[in-house]
Amino acid sequence: MSDASRPGEFDLIARYFAPIAGPGGLGLVDDAALLAPPAGCDLVLTKDLLVAGVHFFPDDPPEAIARKALRVNLSDLAAKGAEPLGFLLGLGLPQGWREGWLAAFARGLGADAAAYACPLLGGDTVSSPERLVLSITALGGVPKGAMVRRTTGRPGDLLYVTGTIGAAAMGLALRLPHPPEWAAALPAATLAAARAGYLLPDPAMPLAQALRDHARAAMDISDGLIGDAMKLAGASGTGLEIDARLVPMLPGVADAARPCPALLACCLTGGDDYQVLAAIPPDGCGAFEETARKAGRPVTRIGTLTVRGTRILGLDGETLTFDRASYGHF
Amino acid sequence: MSDASRPGEFDLIARYFAPIAGPGGLGLVDDAALLAPPAGCDLVLTKDLLVAGVHFFPDDPPEAIARKALRVNLSDLAAKGAEPLGFLLGLGLPQGWREGWLAAFARGLGADAAAYACPLLGGDTVSSPERLVLSITALGGVPKGAMVRRTTGRPGDLLYVTGTIGAAAMGLALRLPHPPEWAAALPAATLAAARAGYLLPDPAMPLAQALRDHARAAMDISDGLIGDAMKLAGASGTGLEIDARLVPMLPGVADAARPCPALLACCLTGGDDYQVLAAIPPDGCGAFEETARKAGRPVTRIGTLTVRGTRILGLDGETLTFDRASYGHF
Repeated sequence: MSDASRPGEFDLIARYFAPIAGPGGLGLVDDAALLAPPAGCDLVLTKDLLVAGVHFFPDDPPEAIARKALRVNLSDLAAKGAEPLGFLLGLGLPQGWREGWLAAFARGLGADAAAYACPLLGGDTVSSPERLVLSITALGGVPKGAMVRRTTGRPGDLLYVTGTIGAAAMGLALRLPHPPEWAAALPAATLAAARAGYLLPDPAMPLAQALRDHARAAMDISDGLIGDAMKLAGASGTGLEIDARLVPMLPGVADAARPCPALLACCLTGGDDYQVLAAIPPDGCGAFEETARKAGRPVTRIGTLTVRGTRILGLDGETLTFDRASYGHF
Repeated sequence: MSDASRPGEFDLIARYFAPIAGPGGLGLVDDAALLAPPAGCDLVLTKDLLVAGVHFFPDDPPEAIARKALRVNLSDLAAKGAEPLGFLLGLGLPQGWREGWLAAFARGLGADAAAYACPLLGGDTVSSPERLVLSITALGGVPKGAMVRRTTGRPGDLLYVTGTIGAAAMGLALRLPHPPEWAAALPAATLAAARAGYLLPDPAMPLAQALRDHARAAMDISDGLIGDAMKLAGASGTGLEIDARLVPMLPGVADAARPCPALLACCLTGGDDYQVLAAIPPDGCGAFEETARKAGRPVTRIGTLTVRGTRILGLDGETLTFDRASYGHF
């Protein structure tokens, strides 16, 4: 399986990954990484597995693949109110991988590790014959007891989202063999933003502290807004109401979606948003909105946690139902 | 991709994985796990990716696949002197997975999580079309500053191994399409032990504290004894000498290997031992051996760290060289 034109595992680690490792990575020459947890800190741990052809396109730019793999984990940390401490990378390289691809991958990973102050701590590199497989485990820290749970929302809390919803699901639809009919109804800038949203999520990390300070419950929106909101409500023992007219979408999408239910369903139930859904007690909403605005990451109220039931209002105020509320992994 | 006869991702997690999760797993209904690190503790982090057909046979018993995936990580923790705190599981299920397979997998994983006091904390379950992929990240704890490094051996330290060496590599060779010629020369019990050694490593976890107390440096032997010893010596800036006559092997192997260099090479340079190689200062050797004996995990002195160079003595005291010193991952 060796190929003289490519570096072996240990050369590869030394050449591409050791330079982007933090001190806890011990130069990536040991069996394990070492992390001294900050005093008075709880650890928040998350892990996402990404498979080529399932979670990204094999021919996506390697920098973007690397950054997306890290960012989907950072989005989980942000939703829990955690600040990044570092990550481990499992890398399964397919047959025929090229050193130039790997160099670009490591470059993208290093850029985001630096930008998010989340250093590489260690990992494992193996052969994965058919497909690139990426596994990232990210570690974050919160002051003891301050992790924002998914299970602690209460009826009357207002539901907020960060960023816009549906861009990534639209971006994915635009790349499938049969482009969706709604594509023709949207401005070029919106289509470009949708494609970019699929390729590279923008985790709400700047809002980690605001979420600790103001959110009663929160979660990462990764499998579709409606289904994920139902998960938060279910875990909290509440119901929910969401008004599609309030959901922030890319420019032109709401207008194009009124005559096209498939577009609205794509935005509200598609996956890959990597925004945060937060349940904020009414008396904290003003401060939460203000803090988010100052952080340059505005948040939008989209609904309410209720006592029971799921009620989704459409673009004309009608009650909506969906064939499926979120992305299924099998 | 859904199949009415199989549970979806969330049912699957609730049914099979939530019951084996520790309190830090938060019932596996949140975005992330929560771990309060023990006071005064450094965290030791390790991650191994295992791919069907590369690291195990797809038709191995699912309980054994699960236990091996956890144990190879526990072996890293043991080598660093760390006590397990918990683990995260990334599970990529191939097309056609069956619920019975998954139930057995979870059973094996739960049994070892309990036996090693290493609870499941969280993870991710995805589709991996062609092959089962497993990614485990294990967390361990050591008293602050007490992690046993790979880089800190010194000339004059004595090299020890736990358990026996070469069993797993023999076990793998016995399962390949053309069984090795040495198979006929070995007792049936040795062949059975070799097969079992490949299927299910036995990490030296009971020696974690003895390693903290006595080892100047240590590492997990996963890619072959000779190559891994060269890594430890290289990382420590020393040379090494290993005497094959001292290396503990299964009964009958040394005799069968004298006329069969391929068998000796298999044992000394094959992978998957998951034993610990430790560099012990001479004045600590007696106490290390005694502690290990009392723990029921005897250790064996096999050589020495020297000032420079690599010297491997064969079964007749001759100097050996190998085409390759360890398993290459590509």
